[in-house]
Amino acid sequence: MDDIPVWSKDHVRMHLPQRQSGSHKGTYGTALLIAGSTGMPGAAVLAAKAAMRSGLGKLVVATARESITPIASHVPEATFEPELMERINDPELDLTSYKAIAIGPGMLPDQKTEAAVEHLLQLGKPLVMDAGALSERTYAKTEAPVILTPHPGEFSRITGVPVEKLQQQRAHHAANCAVKLGVTIVLKGQNTVIAFPDGETYLNATGNSALAKGGTGDTLTGMLLGMLCCHDNWRHAVLNAVHLHGACADEWIKTHSAHTLLAHELTELLPTVMKPYEQQ
Amino acid sequence: MDDIPVWSKDHVRMHLPQRQSGSHKGTYGTALLIAGSTGMPGAAVLAAKAAMRSGLGKLVVATARESITPIASHVPEATFEPELMERINDPELDLTSYKAIAIGPGMLPDQKTEAAVEHLLQLGKPLVMDAGALSERTYAKTEAPVILTPHPGEFSRITGVPVEKLQQQRAHHAANCAVKLGVTIVLKGQNTVIAFPDGETYLNATGNSALAKGGTGDTLTGMLLGMLCCHDNWRHAVLNAVHLHGACADEWIKTHSAHTLLAHELTELLPTVMKPYEQQ
Amino acid sequence: MDDIPVWSKDHVRMHLPQRQSGSHKGTYGTALLIAGSTGMPGAAVLAAKAAMRSGLGKLVVATARESITPIASHVPEATFEPELMERINDPELDLTSYKAIAIGPGMLPDQKTEAAVEHLLQLGKPLVMDAGALSERTYAKTEAPVILTPHPGEFSRITGVPVEKLQQQRAHHAANCAVKLGVTIVLKGQNTVIAFPDGETYLNATGNSALAKGGTGDTLTGMLLGMLCCHDNWRHAVLNAVHLHGACADEWIKTHSAHTLLAHELTELLPTVMKPYEQQ
Amino acid sequence: MDDIPVWSKDHVRMHLPQRQSGSHKGTYGTALLIAGSTGMPGAAVLAAKAAMRSGLGKLVVATARESITPIASHVPEATFEPELMERINDPELDLTSYKAIAIGPGMLPDQKTEAAVEHLLQLGKPLVMDAGALSERTYAKTEAPVILTPHPGEFSRITGVPVEKLQQQRAHHAANCAVKLGVTIVLKGQNTVIAFPDGETYLNATGNSALAKGGTGDTLTGMLLGMLCCHDNWRHAVLNAVHLHGACADEWIKTHSAHTLLAHELTELLPTVMKPYEQQ
Ligand SMILES: Nc1ncnc2c1ncn2[C@@H]1O[C@H](COP(=O)(O)O)[C@@H](O)[C@H]1O
Ligand SMILES: Nc1ncnc2c1ncn2[C@@H]1O[C@H](COP(=O)(O)O)[C@@H](O)[C@H]1O
Ligand SMILES: Nc1ncnc2c1ncn2[C@@H]1O[C@H](COP(=O)(O)O)[C@@H](O)[C@H]1O
Ligand SMILES: Nc1ncnc2c1ncn2[C@@H]1O[C@H](COP(=O)(O)O)[C@@H](O)[C@H]1O
Ligand SMILES: [Mg+2]
Ligand SMILES: [Mg+2]
Ligand SMILES: [Mg+2]
Ligand SMILES: [Mg+2]
Repeated sequence: MDDIPVWSKDHVRMHLPQRQSGSHKGTYGTALLIAGSTGMPGAAVLAAKAAMRSGLGKLVVATARESITPIASHVPEATFEPELMERINDPELDLTSYKAIAIGPGMLPDQKTEAAVEHLLQLGKPLVMDAGALSERTYAKTEAPVILTPHPGEFSRITGVPVEKLQQQRAHHAANCAVKLGVTIVLKGQNTVIAFPDGETYLNATGNSALAKGGTGDTLTGMLLGMLCCHDNWRHAVLNAVHLHGACADEWIKTHSAHTLLAHELTELLPTVMKPYEQQ
Repeated sequence: MDDIPVWSKDHVRMHLPQRQSGSHKGTYGTALLIAGSTGMPGAAVLAAKAAMRSGLGKLVVATARESITPIASHVPEATFEPELMERINDPELDLTSYKAIAIGPGMLPDQKTEAAVEHLLQLGKPLVMDAGALSERTYAKTEAPVILTPHPGEFSRITGVPVEKLQQQRAHHAANCAVKLGVTIVLKGQNTVIAFPDGETYLNATGNSALAKGGTGDTLTGMLLGMLCCHDNWRHAVLNAVHLHGACADEWIKTHSAHTLLAHELTELLPTVMKPYEQQ
Repeated sequence: MDDIPVWSKDHVRMHLPQRQSGSHKGTYGTALLIAGSTGMPGAAVLAAKAAMRSGLGKLVVATARESITPIASHVPEATFEPELMERINDPELDLTSYKAIAIGPGMLPDQKTEAAVEHLLQLGKPLVMDAGALSERTYAKTEAPVILTPHPGEFSRITGVPVEKLQQQRAHHAANCAVKLGVTIVLKGQNTVIAFPDGETYLNATGNSALAKGGTGDTLTGMLLGMLCCHDNWRHAVLNAVHLHGACADEWIKTHSAHTLLAHELTELLPTVMKPYEQQ
Repeated sequence: MDDIPVWSKDHVRMHLPQRQSGSHKGTYGTALLIAGSTGMPGAAVLAAKAAMRSGLGKLVVATARESITPIASHVPEATFEPELMERINDPELDLTSYKAIAIGPGMLPDQKTEAAVEHLLQLGKPLVMDAGALSERTYAKTEAPVILTPHPGEFSRITGVPVEKLQQQRAHHAANCAVKLGVTIVLKGQNTVIAFPDGETYLNATGNSALAKGGTGDTLTGMLLGMLCCHDNWRHAVLNAVHLHGACADEWIKTHSAHTLLAHELTELLPTVMKPYEQQ
């Protein structure tokens, strides 16, 4: 397995979409983010900010009461779907117009979350599942990509593979799991592994220990959601999001201590970090 | 219709007012912004921030409870008129001292909004109508300008012209509608069309696809409101606002990815973008 | 009256205190700011931020519920005195430890405000009165400075002098009023007049029309409060605050449009604007 | 006592840990911050922001209702433990997984605080005690460091030594107290004294009068908490935190007036101030 290809800077350059001059927000579609809870309101802020920076057209957030004011301050561009989790099985709730959905940052892995995930999986929309949305379960076959973004601890929780064993053969376990479940696995950590359901697997070479701090995963989830909206090819969206997330951290440590990064600052670096990838 | 004039950089330079040295906030007047709702609190933040950056004297905001804290954080310079929508027909409510009014960002196109619009149209004040305030209706003749800022979807909703047909002859349809209704139409999108009630029509040449994201229209509404306060000639106010809004986005993409702009950042660029237009 | 001296850049340089190396927050004292109301929460944010930037040791704010979260976001360094206005005559409330007090920004000129002013005047502490705290009244003789900061409209309201007449002889009327009432008058506007109770009068030469917008007066009140804490000579505090407030606006327009300044940005410029005055 | 060594720039350089490339947030551990109250919500914001910038893995905050929204805005990376103070003796509350704990900023020195301190001292975790958590008490012998961060007034309150006497022999009194109580004393002020329980004592040479303002102590507490998480040697954590806190203030006054610093800006300087200490 030591010949896993790296998704390189050049790959990103070639596969990052240009925003077309005649486009409008409808061109990129509306993303739905379900995130945040009373004890973890900030995760929704981080993911929302990251999503809106990553190329989508519009963002709707379903979140906890505690997250609304901070989101409206950080990203006044976002709108809200109130009480979505409570109405998830309400036949009047129509989620079919969303282009992509992410669920999990700052949420507890409880029955309510599981019920929502269950429902979302049936929509046939690109779906990112992180943190509280990650559980030990199987997936029905769908055309639409299902993307799981566990860190090693979460991967272990949903697969039963012990962390130590996992870390010795990260790509192997990620690919196994992806093929078996029929989903995409983004196994986070140094050299994040991206394994697609058909076994195709890449390593990410960006990022550093400045990311070893709470909140950076929530930012990644938001970036994945946004990138899914502006890419035609969802695999490129996933690979580019992971690469650029790490590239922001690499930019940070050029002039700042690695101990000091706050996850929301990744998003502030993204506009200038992403720019050179788009030229030519 | 391919000879529609462009409102150019030079036009803006010639018609942008200088802030006079002996002026005070009363010189520029007080603007009223009605915007925001429980699910769309941020639209009021965006419009308020844009308005206060665009030359007015004072700003009063009538908004949803959810918007107050974020506005007081982003623009502590704004004040609030509580429960205005509820008291809109209250004879004690005196709106005659406002210099210009904008309504609609982040509001639903419901009966309450319609009733407020109805009332505001009778005031004989410059009135900007956007988003939730846009509906299929007729307008009584007034001296005071009524400015509608639909994107193609909204234009279609209020005129019945299908979007595809509209987009093939944007200037034609905008001008038709402006003359017929006796209002100013700002038909948004690439090369925004500004059509005045007498048929005079301009194209805007600034802006780019970084604007193809939720919230940028709310920022434009705020800029229009502010510019109406500091211009003597309201047509120049409209044309200059549209031009400068796009110019901020053009500045953004010089050094930032077009995928990453947040609408509130337009307003942060305005102070330096506007400066060179004022020199000599 | 055309020989009124200007409080110049050199005056400020000579009379701006250096922060002493062995000092601690107690050296500069604790200031009390009473400001803000439901409809004007932001005024308290502006004044609080300005005060904490202007050399005090600690700041306590008595304000409206709506102002607390925005203040805790903008100036987490401030603390709060809850329900102060309700307890103003409570014998348990001890205000004697404050070094200076300001009241009025974002407040209504109602009976409650008047009662608080009445009480504060008896404390014998440097007191800044602005906006809602300004009323037609007389003042008992005290050692402690009482500083009124009316704009022309407010000056007219508290003295009966019509605005037009006032503006023709600003220094004359300000000085008259200062001597008659035994207070310091800061008559705001282009070339702000500072008139002391003994008739000594200065003009300010900084500032420009970027200040002609809501909120800039609240910022000045905060700066006056802060400067009273770090100056030994309260007259210098008043004169320096007015000068530096205008100097921040002068810095702004070097690179930004005068139409676009938000009052809270004055405070963000203060640290670098003030620095060169301290050298040597 | 005039031969107390200074913890110098070179000491920091030698003893500041590098963030290891293969690390993850678990490597640095989770810190618990207990801070803030209704009247002092901002202290929790300051300490939380400082902690997350100072190398920890995750941060959990137990705080007042008023602090939650400002923290979620400033540091959306933090999470919350609701009602912790109320449940402090609840056997279901498990605090054993925290790597380090800080208590006191923005809290009142009342019975509830004392009860919490009592409980925390029994956990055997590195514990920082500041402000409201400082009281006249004795300490049981533990392996885990207990770090008290009084300013002279607080030192006097908990030891009975009058401030004037204390200030004449700061190192002497700090060391005495540290040895007697078996704790580490960070006696703040110009040339902060760091005295360890075995009598080892250092002086800090960074910092200046820009720090003589409310809130800077809360920032230090947060930095201490964060540094305890990323240092193997807790003494180095304490010494480095104090040094870097002052170094940020020293950076500030190079280009900004010493009168104008807000404590939360120290934390914004930390990433670039800390960087050169890490090189080679
Ligand atoms: N040492 C490291 N090197 C590179 N990336 C890291 C490192 N530690 C954490 N990350 C990234 O930071 C994020 C952490 O996500 P989470 O564990 O969900 O907070 C993921 O994107 C990880 O890949
Ligand atoms: N591709 C584009 N090129 C130029 N301007 C655009 C483009 N897409 C959107 N805009 C502008 O962005 C704003 C969108 O407004 P709204 O649709 O109300 O959010 C309007 O000012 C549009 O003119
Ligand atoms: N045209 C102007 N030139 C200089 N300063 C001004 C001008 N207009 C307003 N100001 C200042 O802006 C502030 C306005 O205060 P207020 O009227 O209370 O909001 C005062 O400090 C005025 O002196
Ligand atoms: N004059 C000064 N020189 C250096 N450091 C100071 C000075 N005044 C205050 N400090 C520091 O600022 C902080 C004040 O903490 P506190 O008194 O708790 O707000 C401590 O870290 C002090 O060491
Ligand atoms: Mg995570
Ligand atoms: Mg719109
Ligand atoms: Mg005023
Ligand atoms: Mg303290």
